[in-house]
Amino acid sequence: MQLVTYQDLAREEAARVGVVLDEHVVDVALLGLQANAGLPSTMLGLIDAGPAALDLLRDLIATHRERWPVGTATWLSNVRLLAPIPRPRKNIFGIGLNYVDHVAESSRSLDTEKEMPAKPVVFSKPPTTVIGPNDAIEHNSKITQQLDWEVELGVVIGRTAKGIAEADAMAYVFGYTVINDISARDNRRAGQWIFSKGQDTYCPMGPCIVTADEIPDPHNLELSLTKNGHIMQQANTALMYFKIPALIADIASAITLEPGDIIATGTPSGVGAGRTPQEWMHPGDVIEACVERIGTLRNPVVSV
Amino acid sequence: MQLVTYQDLAREEAARVGVVLDEHVVDVALLGLQANAGLPSTMLGLIDAGPAALDLLRDLIATHRERWPVGTATWLSNVRLLAPIPRPRKNIFGIGLNYVDHVAESSRSLDTEKEMPAKPVVFSKPPTTVIGPNDAIEHNSKITQQLDWEVELGVVIGRTAKGIAEADAMAYVFGYTVINDISARDNRRAGQWIFSKGQDTYCPMGPCIVTADEIPDPHNLELSLTKNGHIMQQANTALMYFKIPALIADIASAITLEPGDIIATGTPSGVGAGRTPQEWMHPGDVIEACVERIGTLRNPVVSV
Repeated sequence: MQLVTYQDLAREEAARVGVVLDEHVVDVALLGLQANAGLPSTMLGLIDAGPAALDLLRDLIATHRERWPVGTATWLSNVRLLAPIPRPRKNIFGIGLNYVDHVAESSRSLDTEKEMPAKPVVFSKPPTTVIGPNDAIEHNSKITQQLDWEVELGVVIGRTAKGIAEADAMAYVFGYTVINDISARDNRRAGQWIFSKGQDTYCPMGPCIVTADEIPDPHNLELSLTKNGHIMQQANTALMYFKIPALIADIASAITLEPGDIIATGTPSGVGAGRTPQEWMHPGDVIEACVERIGTLRNPVVSV
Repeated sequence: MQLVTYQDLAREEAARVGVVLDEHVVDVALLGLQANAGLPSTMLGLIDAGPAALDLLRDLIATHRERWPVGTATWLSNVRLLAPIPRPRKNIFGIGLNYVDHVAESSRSLDTEKEMPAKPVVFSKPPTTVIGPNDAIEHNSKITQQLDWEVELGVVIGRTAKGIAEADAMAYVFGYTVINDISARDNRRAGQWIFSKGQDTYCPMGPCIVTADEIPDPHNLELSLTKNGHIMQQANTALMYFKIPALIADIASAITLEPGDIIATGTPSGVGAGRTPQEWMHPGDVIEACVERIGTLRNPVVSV
């Protein structure tokens, strides 16, 4: 399923979780009411509710797809999509230096090593970084002259994980989304990345979460990023150095992963810092980050 | 006021916010009921409620201090204290390299520079790191052989801050607590600190939050840390390089600070990594971190 967090533009309502089907958004909680079953109204609620809730939702979709019950479906064009998880429960976990060609370009242009890291390079982005599709990436010229992009596959955790085996790790995945891991390259502090990657609006996410069952092989997805229509990054998740099970098991060896936590799995080459000459985002630019089978995450850059 | 988050050992109840006075914990919400006034039952609720709630609480304490209304006060010895904010809304912000003598010892023993940083060195600890007084710091010998301590003054933010002037920053402080910023020194990843500082139980916090009005000068507080009764760190917050207003204004220049957010303001010299020979925490050790006017935060180290 393609799950979204949306607001119906015709109503003044809180954001709700929906399923995208046939150009419609079908409201999860309202569809649940058809079966006198409680289904959650938020994405985090749906993740917390576990596999039984997803199974019920699939059954209800199969039953009603020919004709959606009155009031449960809205034209996709009549809703605003938000980040699938507008407010994560903790920081987003990012993985640095996880594509070989990006490690090479980073060692030439930034302050990182030439060699692949021995362990995943974990960093974090506060939950206040998250924005949704079409939301503005803020460009504050008082703070940065080196605003950069990074398309990444985002992994959404489905249940609490701590001390798990790598072989079991995929069972903890709820689904996948697209992340644009924005960085102000000139805002690193004694090598620490959080100030450069943790500023408000620096984590565009979306447009949807595709549930894990629909992406049996997340290590074979094309990913790309364009700036004003020009291709900047193009690669395949097959080129990830530490694969998803290794990332989950590694983080969860010491840090409890919780339902709705997000791991941004790293970016391939083609970032602005790695180009000759270097290239940055400026107000007026439009960035589109795309991952196969998930969708395109479009965000304009605006001056603040 | 000395505010705590506590559980009454005689009852099976959720954690509640209380005030410590005369060897008692006075329950904030229950005392509020005496005035037919809604006062929150959690620390984050109380912070969100703003200055009017604190004023009302002070009035109620003045009125009832001679004789607490039945059921509102419990002997301190009959409660369990938790971290004042058991689950922060986002990562804790830590500040690295903020005491001159610690910068010197770090440059000798770790991989940091000799010079003081030009800007605050911000890093983060996930909310899942937080533990309270007497809770165990977990020592996992499969993961680390270099578990280290760092006593720090913690600043608790009282209201949303973004783009504020340094001159106004102190008005955004709700209060102060003690933080022990635990690190697995051998768990840095390509220089990033979150995996070394972000593991479960690596942020002991407490025993209380002292409201800002009772600490008019937070830059003149003795702080110290003992391991098994032996003094390891002893200094004064006067020696902070970037002062609290600079830290708040700097982070809030780009990252929205929210009520209940916590900034750990850095540690002085005397950490295990900086000693000759180096010294680490081991199962069985007891660590006491102390900040003047706030209290002592005691935690045992246990093997997991």
